[in-house]
Amino acid sequence: MKIIEGGVTAAKGFSAAVCAANIKYKDRTDMAAIISDRDCVSAGTFTKNVVKAAPVVWDRDLVYGSNTARAVIINSGIANACTGTQGMEYCQKTCRAAEAELGVPADQVFTASTGVIGMQLPIDRLSAGIGKMKGHFSDDIEAGTEAAKAIMTTDTKHKEAAVTIDIGGICVTIGGMCKGSGMIHPDMCTMLGFVTTDCCITKEMLQKALSKSVKDSYNMVSVDGDTSTNDTVLLLANGAAGNRIIDSENEDYRAFCEALDYINIRLAKMIAGDGEGATALFEVKVINAPAKEDAVTLSKSVITSSLTKAAIFGHDANWGRILCALGYSGVSFDPEKVDLFFESAAGRIQIVKNGVGCDYSEEEATKILSEEAVTVTADMHAGSASATAWGCDLTYDYVKINADYRS
Amino acid sequence: MKIIEGGVTAAKGFSAAVCAANIKYKDRTDMAAIISDRDCVSAGTFTKNVVKAAPVVWDRDLVYGSNTARAVIINSGIANACTGTQGMEYCQKTCRAAEAELGVPADQVFTASTGVIGMQLPIDRLSAGIGKMKGHFSDDIEAGTEAAKAIMTTDTKHKEAAVTIDIGGICVTIGGMCKGSGMIHPDMCTMLGFVTTDCCITKEMLQKALSKSVKDSYNMVSVDGDTSTNDTVLLLANGAAGNRIIDSENEDYRAFCEALDYINIRLAKMIAGDGEGATALFEVKVINAPAKEDAVTLSKSVITSSLTKAAIFGHDANWGRILCALGYSGVSFDPEKVDLFFESAAGRIQIVKNGVGCDYSEEEATKILSEEAVTVTADMHAGSASATAWGCDLTYDYVKINADYRS
Repeated sequence: MKIIEGGVTAAKGFSAAVCAANIKYKDRTDMAAIISDRDCVSAGTFTKNVVKAAPVVWDRDLVYGSNTARAVIINSGIANACTGTQGMEYCQKTCRAAEAELGVPADQVFTASTGVIGMQLPIDRLSAGIGKMKGHFSDDIEAGTEAAKAIMTTDTKHKEAAVTIDIGGICVTIGGMCKGSGMIHPDMCTMLGFVTTDCCITKEMLQKALSKSVKDSYNMVSVDGDTSTNDTVLLLANGAAGNRIIDSENEDYRAFCEALDYINIRLAKMIAGDGEGATALFEVKVINAPAKEDAVTLSKSVITSSLTKAAIFGHDANWGRILCALGYSGVSFDPEKVDLFFESAAGRIQIVKNGVGCDYSEEEATKILSEEAVTVTADMHAGSASATAWGCDLTYDYVKINADYRS
Repeated sequence: MKIIEGGVTAAKGFSAAVCAANIKYKDRTDMAAIISDRDCVSAGTFTKNVVKAAPVVWDRDLVYGSNTARAVIINSGIANACTGTQGMEYCQKTCRAAEAELGVPADQVFTASTGVIGMQLPIDRLSAGIGKMKGHFSDDIEAGTEAAKAIMTTDTKHKEAAVTIDIGGICVTIGGMCKGSGMIHPDMCTMLGFVTTDCCITKEMLQKALSKSVKDSYNMVSVDGDTSTNDTVLLLANGAAGNRIIDSENEDYRAFCEALDYINIRLAKMIAGDGEGATALFEVKVINAPAKEDAVTLSKSVITSSLTKAAIFGHDANWGRILCALGYSGVSFDPEKVDLFFESAAGRIQIVKNGVGCDYSEEEATKILSEEAVTVTADMHAGSASATAWGCDLTYDYVKINADYRS
């Protein structure tokens, strides 16, 4: 596997365009489209929130009901969530505009929206935006980067990643982009993520690979414990690489999955590190737990603890809050067997042994906690399962951003 | 039922004392003791956190293993949690000091601690503190108030409440105090709460009344989603009122329960309103849900949503976040049937009808949300069960307090 530059236009046959459609933001791009030059098979994972945005319902029907797909139309600013039947009509109108302007069948177009909940989309400006993008599609790396920028809301950085792998002597590319900064606590899936590949793979294997991959990537991220109404990850494969088709769980499939996991975990960590107001990426590793499920629950409990997140912001080695968060996770364990470690670019120290604080240097701990990426490892000494979750610190800026997001 | 002044010394036969024992805080009282002049029956509910503070283990053994109790010794500043066998020894030493200095049998003394996790108690100063309190016990209302102040940590207000009820022509008094401001998400019970009564009631009925009452009071409060290691509510009844004994679920029991519920809900709401950094008490009522359990889950999901809490701080009628939080609660419902209302001393408005925003005045909504106590009502139109949860807004000060709590 080789890490390369780029995102959704890295794979052969995919191009992208953006425009400033004035949907809610002024003076910036707020629409992006991805098109494949040939039919794709598609896979998707979607929010488990009972309140589902219109595009989530639309895309789910397309992933589960259709064998082919060609394009994705995305807007930022307004989420098209809690918008009733009108919201669904607007999905249809978006896809019809794509058919009219871009020449892709309306029933092969995904839509995705992100932003404020409860407002209706300005559908005329959205349709006009699709017209503006016509003739401006490019398969350059930069076109993918511009798309990653256009879909941002409170994100401070655009997020993309790409790799190549060798399948039977053929170079296969996977590239992706995502957005997400607040209302981040993916369940079954995440915020918005779009991954494209020129791999030749069956729809069934594509979905299997994606469903497995999101569990260890986006689903292990939490910025604020709020599972969005719009969480969507789409994966499009157009077969342009010309590799032998992947149609079973063979060696090629495993190579593809490994590369897909890399992309998704990379993007997931970018979301956590760019959490609203965050100053640090906060990683929690739980090791030697009785079962994988326990390790997942324990690590997520710490990553979502407001008190722990505030302590990380304060560079305070407040390990009692970490033990406390493990304790209320719902997983049964012996507190007097737990060891805790802090780790970052500045070093590694043990702070708890057998559930009681070690005689560590507060100064050294603070130094370790002052880095941009901080890891806590909890050794449960109760088995061999492990899990890693990603989040961020809780800061004044998180409150500031969210106390007045709509205005 | 008649609401009266006072707290833990309101009921006959209970007296209290406080002292500045220099446990962690300087220049303030940090120890309190409550003593009954005769044997009490006791009831208790305790944290479900796997990581239990030493006093929780000590008190649980006393509630479940002994028929009588006489006193409670409480300290603030250090929580005696994650302190291993030494922590348990310090509970024992505390109770032995109480026996030596105050003349109450060591095996009839409860202990309770609140503050920083992971530090050992300065047991010599704690024992000396018990000595200082000797001879200073008083059954005045003020003595109860001083006790409520001594047990505060990041609380900004002391919290106490008392009522009298008539049982068979006899005046029975129930009074209580509590503390709690952060790490508040009681599960099975709460922070620290102490309720005393001169009611004549069996231990069995006392525990039954308390277990029922905490479910609708402390267990419906969340400040930050963090369930503490020290959550404890103790209820002592010394029978000094001389009423006919309550030994079955009769009319007297129901009157007692009603009064106990009032005290516990009043104290619980005080905790929510005094949540760390809070500027507003945030109440969430879920009505017409399919089952009580669903209503509890839905209301707690909204009360713990960081995004919703930040919006309340910003006086922003961001109802999309409320619908979203209902949606990810895990309860199944039809979003297109949900109605939402905002209410406070400044008025009441409907903001969502059938899952879609109403044409309400943002100005009026902001005015309603600018009060010190704000209520959201979610009508699920799916049954007849209801529940109310209490929390607070998420503010800069919450972050400030918790980014550097230990120093």
